[in-house]
Amino acid sequence: MKELFIADLMGFEEGKQFDSFFLVLAKQQRTTKTNKPYLNLILGDKTGQIEARVWELSDPRIAKEFARGEIVKVRGSFSRYEDRGQVKVDQLRRALTGEADKMDMLPATTRDVGVLWSELEATVASVTNADLKRLLNALLADSAIAQNFREAPAARQLHHAWLGGLLEHVVSLLGLADRVAGHYAVLDRDLLVTGVVLHDIGKIRELEWETGFDYTVEGVLLGHIQMGVDLVEKTIAGLPGFPDRLRTLVLHMILSHHGKLEFGSPKLPMIPEALVLNFVDDLDAKMQAMASEFEKCAREGKAADELTGKVWALDNRQLLNTKGWLKGGE
Amino acid sequence: MKELFIADLMGFEEGKQFDSFFLVLAKQQRTTKTNKPYLNLILGDKTGQIEARVWELSDPRIAKEFARGEIVKVRGSFSRYEDRGQVKVDQLRRALTGEADKMDMLPATTRDVGVLWSELEATVASVTNADLKRLLNALLADSAIAQNFREAPAARQLHHAWLGGLLEHVVSLLGLADRVAGHYAVLDRDLLVTGVVLHDIGKIRELEWETGFDYTVEGVLLGHIQMGVDLVEKTIAGLPGFPDRLRTLVLHMILSHHGKLEFGSPKLPMIPEALVLNFVDDLDAKMQAMASEFEKCAREGKAADELTGKVWALDNRQLLNTKGWLKGGE
Amino acid sequence: MKELFIADLMGFEEGKQFDSFFLVLAKQQRTTKTNKPYLNLILGDKTGQIEARVWELSDPRIAKEFARGEIVKVRGSFSRYEDRGQVKVDQLRRALTGEADKMDMLPATTRDVGVLWSELEATVASVTNADLKRLLNALLADSAIAQNFREAPAARQLHHAWLGGLLEHVVSLLGLADRVAGHYAVLDRDLLVTGVVLHDIGKIRELEWETGFDYTVEGVLLGHIQMGVDLVEKTIAGLPGFPDRLRTLVLHMILSHHGKLEFGSPKLPMIPEALVLNFVDDLDAKMQAMASEFEKCAREGKAADELTGKVWALDNRQLLNTKGWLKGGE
Amino acid sequence: MKELFIADLMGFEEGKQFDSFFLVLAKQQRTTKTNKPYLNLILGDKTGQIEARVWELSDPRIAKEFARGEIVKVRGSFSRYEDRGQVKVDQLRRALTGEADKMDMLPATTRDVGVLWSELEATVASVTNADLKRLLNALLADSAIAQNFREAPAARQLHHAWLGGLLEHVVSLLGLADRVAGHYAVLDRDLLVTGVVLHDIGKIRELEWETGFDYTVEGVLLGHIQMGVDLVEKTIAGLPGFPDRLRTLVLHMILSHHGKLEFGSPKLPMIPEALVLNFVDDLDAKMQAMASEFEKCAREGKAADELTGKVWALDNRQLLNTKGWLKGGE
Amino acid sequence: MKELFIADLMGFEEGKQFDSFFLVLAKQQRTTKTNKPYLNLILGDKTGQIEARVWELSDPRIAKEFARGEIVKVRGSFSRYEDRGQVKVDQLRRALTGEADKMDMLPATTRDVGVLWSELEATVASVTNADLKRLLNALLADSAIAQNFREAPAARQLHHAWLGGLLEHVVSLLGLADRVAGHYAVLDRDLLVTGVVLHDIGKIRELEWETGFDYTVEGVLLGHIQMGVDLVEKTIAGLPGFPDRLRTLVLHMILSHHGKLEFGSPKLPMIPEALVLNFVDDLDAKMQAMASEFEKCAREGKAADELTGKVWALDNRQLLNTKGWLKGGE
Amino acid sequence: MKELFIADLMGFEEGKQFDSFFLVLAKQQRTTKTNKPYLNLILGDKTGQIEARVWELSDPRIAKEFARGEIVKVRGSFSRYEDRGQVKVDQLRRALTGEADKMDMLPATTRDVGVLWSELEATVASVTNADLKRLLNALLADSAIAQNFREAPAARQLHHAWLGGLLEHVVSLLGLADRVAGHYAVLDRDLLVTGVVLHDIGKIRELEWETGFDYTVEGVLLGHIQMGVDLVEKTIAGLPGFPDRLRTLVLHMILSHHGKLEFGSPKLPMIPEALVLNFVDDLDAKMQAMASEFEKCAREGKAADELTGKVWALDNRQLLNTKGWLKGGE
Repeated sequence: MKELFIADLMGFEEGKQFDSFFLVLAKQQRTTKTNKPYLNLILGDKTGQIEARVWELSDPRIAKEFARGEIVKVRGSFSRYEDRGQVKVDQLRRALTGEADKMDMLPATTRDVGVLWSELEATVASVTNADLKRLLNALLADSAIAQNFREAPAARQLHHAWLGGLLEHVVSLLGLADRVAGHYAVLDRDLLVTGVVLHDIGKIRELEWETGFDYTVEGVLLGHIQMGVDLVEKTIAGLPGFPDRLRTLVLHMILSHHGKLEFGSPKLPMIPEALVLNFVDDLDAKMQAMASEFEKCAREGKAADELTGKVWALDNRQLLNTKGWLKGGE
Repeated sequence: MKELFIADLMGFEEGKQFDSFFLVLAKQQRTTKTNKPYLNLILGDKTGQIEARVWELSDPRIAKEFARGEIVKVRGSFSRYEDRGQVKVDQLRRALTGEADKMDMLPATTRDVGVLWSELEATVASVTNADLKRLLNALLADSAIAQNFREAPAARQLHHAWLGGLLEHVVSLLGLADRVAGHYAVLDRDLLVTGVVLHDIGKIRELEWETGFDYTVEGVLLGHIQMGVDLVEKTIAGLPGFPDRLRTLVLHMILSHHGKLEFGSPKLPMIPEALVLNFVDDLDAKMQAMASEFEKCAREGKAADELTGKVWALDNRQLLNTKGWLKGGE
Repeated sequence: MKELFIADLMGFEEGKQFDSFFLVLAKQQRTTKTNKPYLNLILGDKTGQIEARVWELSDPRIAKEFARGEIVKVRGSFSRYEDRGQVKVDQLRRALTGEADKMDMLPATTRDVGVLWSELEATVASVTNADLKRLLNALLADSAIAQNFREAPAARQLHHAWLGGLLEHVVSLLGLADRVAGHYAVLDRDLLVTGVVLHDIGKIRELEWETGFDYTVEGVLLGHIQMGVDLVEKTIAGLPGFPDRLRTLVLHMILSHHGKLEFGSPKLPMIPEALVLNFVDDLDAKMQAMASEFEKCAREGKAADELTGKVWALDNRQLLNTKGWLKGGE
Repeated sequence: MKELFIADLMGFEEGKQFDSFFLVLAKQQRTTKTNKPYLNLILGDKTGQIEARVWELSDPRIAKEFARGEIVKVRGSFSRYEDRGQVKVDQLRRALTGEADKMDMLPATTRDVGVLWSELEATVASVTNADLKRLLNALLADSAIAQNFREAPAARQLHHAWLGGLLEHVVSLLGLADRVAGHYAVLDRDLLVTGVVLHDIGKIRELEWETGFDYTVEGVLLGHIQMGVDLVEKTIAGLPGFPDRLRTLVLHMILSHHGKLEFGSPKLPMIPEALVLNFVDDLDAKMQAMASEFEKCAREGKAADELTGKVWALDNRQLLNTKGWLKGGE
Repeated sequence: MKELFIADLMGFEEGKQFDSFFLVLAKQQRTTKTNKPYLNLILGDKTGQIEARVWELSDPRIAKEFARGEIVKVRGSFSRYEDRGQVKVDQLRRALTGEADKMDMLPATTRDVGVLWSELEATVASVTNADLKRLLNALLADSAIAQNFREAPAARQLHHAWLGGLLEHVVSLLGLADRVAGHYAVLDRDLLVTGVVLHDIGKIRELEWETGFDYTVEGVLLGHIQMGVDLVEKTIAGLPGFPDRLRTLVLHMILSHHGKLEFGSPKLPMIPEALVLNFVDDLDAKMQAMASEFEKCAREGKAADELTGKVWALDNRQLLNTKGWLKGGE
Repeated sequence: MKELFIADLMGFEEGKQFDSFFLVLAKQQRTTKTNKPYLNLILGDKTGQIEARVWELSDPRIAKEFARGEIVKVRGSFSRYEDRGQVKVDQLRRALTGEADKMDMLPATTRDVGVLWSELEATVASVTNADLKRLLNALLADSAIAQNFREAPAARQLHHAWLGGLLEHVVSLLGLADRVAGHYAVLDRDLLVTGVVLHDIGKIRELEWETGFDYTVEGVLLGHIQMGVDLVEKTIAGLPGFPDRLRTLVLHMILSHHGKLEFGSPKLPMIPEALVLNFVDDLDAKMQAMASEFEKCAREGKAADELTGKVWALDNRQLLNTKGWLKGGE
């Protein structure tokens, strides 16, 4: 199995040789200034991406056939140029079945997926409305849906863009939504919980995560809101006696969860539960973006009481880590 | 049957008594300055609306029980006050079954609905793609859908806000779309035609037209785009072997036909047929708004070469009737 | 003391005479069509407002001198016109000192102010950061500030526009913020709590609530954000050794709590606590606006499963009461 | 005459020598890392652009004097670097008069300009309003205007950015406008046709196309809308008895054809013909942008059923080629 | 001549009879609640507008024929209703030629038009660039243009909406522009002065001020920017040898003086003089709007240290009169 | 002292050796393609910035310890690559105290700071309102504030981004404001002058200019508007009897001087002096941006009658130098 990760390479001395498995994220033939052809690759694993070059195309130790999206075994050496690392590839072949685990090849949640799934199931079990419970159970009992729900990232980039990110995002929201539901007597907790579980379920069809994270063509044309609504509509169609009005509210929550027309929700939240769903979803995404930025700055060696750079996901504002800043002033 | 319409009343001399059937659009009890209670009604028929008052609530010739949305027979007399007419009601009772025709009670298309329907069917017959033809035929063959399609207005107010307005709008678009399809070789006419027929089909559920034109609660929560997509999805589910990609394109056209996120389309048009559908839909609505404004000015006695007032549906701009203005200058 | 309130009048039969105290919200001399002068008044108390007319200006039982903002004792009778009530004034004089309580004259929180204040104090007591605790205690220990904080409305109209509204809003936010603080380990609860208590404190100077709720001229020129920052800056100046960086963060939270430049915050939230403050403040205002609208519809006799009208504070969208709608469908 | 084009070079093997004529689009002296000066050129012809380098500045076979905007004869060899080609120049001299045709040097319409011009003349001939016909004939009869109209691109970049592009755009619009005019009885076809022919005529002064496509300084300061209005105003001034009101409408169509103030139209379309002109102009530009993007993707070897990249001229949305996608799914 | 003005009437005791001349701004036949027809008029003179009613239509002392836009002689009496005055008309006839002066009938500048004109001429005389001087002299020497320039209002409502308002606005701007020109050495004073004199000259065609202030149809279709450019283009065409580049700059200043596309300028200011013209024009309009609002508040009896209402021309903000406020605090 | 500046280097022949002092603006270790480490520096002085490289890290003539923000003495040679210069560093050591002047190291005003300060003092002396004069004198008499006011840039980049830029900007505004104050009788010159002097005073805390120009963390969190208000509030607190209303107006001018909420002003200008302050501030910034762009184009060798590139500070519009363009056309 894979024991050496891209993040480890950055600490290597230059020229040191190593073996490991990577996912091929991009493959392009180029020519040097002296007109010699070479391969330029982007290799990835769950800790990051690195550029790699194959200079000797005719070397028999370099596989002729391999494609974007495949896992390869590479022997190579590491060098560093202007703060970025690069791999010089000496040998390369396709990984054999079972040699490498796809979960190692893409960034993945640091949480235990089994634990997250149990938390989701516990919340579903706590729903008291029988119809909503039937609906949630029907979806989670579908093994294809459940498998995708466990694997899917929550986005191609930005917040929760890693395997298991969707589930992690939903579980975090469930906790937050539960807290807010306790504060406002007007809220129907069952409906809010259902909305949280289902609001992004269309992402299991909008995104694909075999070869890096990307949108499917259907996903670009229809969007995860419509795809989620469709999935839920079809599931409800299989539940005899599901109340029409309840169905309308569940669909309304999915449709309106982006909160604004210009964010792609064709409807604004019109019931309290939809309003709260939109708020907790937005807040959680922004808190996650803040946390990611603070981690990135720490990784890049910024002082803990410095401002971050401008963060795209937060309207290009700079951020400050409260604790780091207060400690820095002591 | 109804022989006297509200538009006719405006030409009456004051005080002249008449009998006719009307739809009760509003009913409200009020009090005079001398504390005498009376009923204030809004009565409507297909030619317009008029205010009516019932002064003698205890008169046995005035029905005690009647509600908004019912058709009533009224004996009354007409008066005029500051350019508006008013009816003084002497007798009022609920219409008996069969006495009055609902089609007389709401504004309706001036076109022959049967002819419009034939034009729609002829266009469907001209579709050469077998799958799209199956889809269109399946929808139009559903008698409930077909009945609603023939009756539905295209809007609560603004463009085509009358019975049969949806069908009239679609048939007008079909003609225009056909002309544009002939101009651009890149366009798949069958797909464009399908998009035109289906783009607003959700309006048969978003709107209700029993008692004036209004949105249903479900319509407000979900919108006609989602309701149309659902109707089409379910119809396609009943068509074995309908190609997945074709289904995606048809749904994409419905989803994107408003052309902008802020107009409630969760997706922008990404295929040529969707782009054209958005354009012809928008152009036809604006041409209709222009025509309506010119008619309104003519009815109100404005000179043909005067500017209209500011028109809300056209960004509050004023309009000018080309022909009237040029003739006025001769 | 006042025993009869405006809300009670609406149930009166017309012509019934009564005595009560009211606040004069407006006073205007007008002329009848027959050129007879009369007084048109708006009278208010904590349950609402009503129009009143004084027809006999020379009657010795009508005080000559009284002004907007004064409490008066009125003997009059009630009538109803087009759904609104009106008072015909027979006698009117200024209230004597002690005859009436200002708290009866303006809408006020339905919560017990003493209880709310205790909840605020309990939260302050739970703050563990010694400097923040000093700051909060210093402000609440100032009797003028504390008195204003107990009385001030949170707005002139819209959300929490009643006496004690500011305190009620802050206490509700404290509960919500506490729940959110428990969800995100990154949050400094002390700082968040401090931000919640202080974010709107400038409103005790921006608004005045002697004669109805209005903005002071200084309030319009400077705004409650600047006025709150000033109040906090001056309090901190009296606290020796208060850390500079902590002072900056507290001020930043006040400055940024509206969340967007176009909402009058000169800075966007850049620390996690400021982001959360903006979210809970916005969510609580919107949940309150929803609740108010549902109550208003209930008061006006709308069915519980009808949509509300368009709500200005929520981008003119219509709302639906989840529970009423679901019950209506059973 | 020119027989070898830039598009042909891309198929060459590296190092192969050739001779051809090119337009100098840019010329810049640079220095190698070893401080040796060299010339960097951008050479263009109607099939594209290519970078070229002159390494031996003192070689007598390299002309000393030549400038941006001149046609040169080049002997050189071709190489390829990271997907782009480059020319190494061995000899270079100014082209002699008559050796090369300017029409070969810039991208040009693939349509036959003579045929396009005939189509324009045929449409003008079909105009029945004598005044409008006089106006159009007067403009097209001016040999300088006619020559520019035949040569001008429709834009510096984006849609129809090639010689003859303006004429091609106008002729396409005439066809589309004719189709739309047939659909709406309210439209005055003569006026619409006139608007189509004249709406962009100011571009013959706003743009210059001697040395690549660029805006003139006057064009940047005044814009093609104003320049077109001026041209038409002066032409009308030479037509005795041209009706004032008709002149106003023609000018209004030019002024308003961008459809929005923020797109540079100082007036919004207020007559039906101006509204239609704005729509067909916008639709044709967008259909052209779609077609160009599909062609570009095909040239770049994308699969026919892949999404395109984000297209600037279409609000950065991605596009999908309907036919390619459907075929790909079979 | 006219001796009694509408502003004088407001001080009258009710019922007092008077004679005077007025401009008929509106004329409408209405019916009383008892179905008696009467005429409702809006009468105007330079001090304001007042509603008037003619109850006895058949009275021989009431002229049968008179229209909007005509001057009439009225004998009537004054009454007051809810803060507004009203005239009961006893006699009415058309004014005879010479009986009344149009300048008395519409609001007019309080400045002496002759003096303003002399100031304009003095500034033109101070221009040192011979070509610009020729241009300005040619325009002002045209007696029709000069007469209109002296009479035209600067707007239909909002700033300088009175006879002579355009001239007053231009003369004020000339003073301000001269001061700014003295501050920035980069500015070409002659060009700036020319821009100030000409920027709004199209308003003499965009507006008409015979019967109140209104836009002409041509004005609505073309706008004063285009109309001004046209006037200047034609004047320059009559000046042999006028430099092309100078012409372009003068036209650019007119085109760009609104400063933003969305304010109807098809071009943004690109030269320093155009930038300054846009700023002084905008500042002067806003200073005038402030002054008007302060005068209006004073007329309406507001205290000098109260805030004004929300002012539409200043983004609906409230204003405060510095001097009144400071004095009020002493 | 420093005798050789970066601007001088650009005229050097390549390879020529020199000695001079520079400020280290950036310092980064990198690796060549052959894995040899080197230092990449950005060196600055008041005339500009240049890249520099240290190839021999172990050379004893290269100081080991020096940091961003320090002044160093460099011996090196100059080379040129693709229009940019570069320094090869042979020797480098920290500057000794007194060897170099910080004022030489950053761009600084070309005006004499002493003269500018005298102009500021003269204007303050001309203020007739005793309270405002007290306020201004108190601030300028604070030696720390006065020193910072003399040194501070007006911005990090864009307009007046050089040492002394704030003072230069304020003095230019004082001249312009005085001219405008003379034009409008309504203006209180003393208040306007006070607003001009104080509007940006918070920048002495928002910015730091020790090591290049940058924002302080406090500056980013609070902004110069709030920081200026705080400084003025505290100064006023030390002036017994300063009128409350005058204090409110001074603070309002600072708060509102950006003119729009979205530009970071939490209040819009509501008094005439605040409106004028916003206008002259905006105009002066834009005139300065124009002047800078014209100078930059001249430096870069553009013809005087060419358009500039797109200027970010002026909405990305292109500019034209009036005088250059007119002269070019002669």
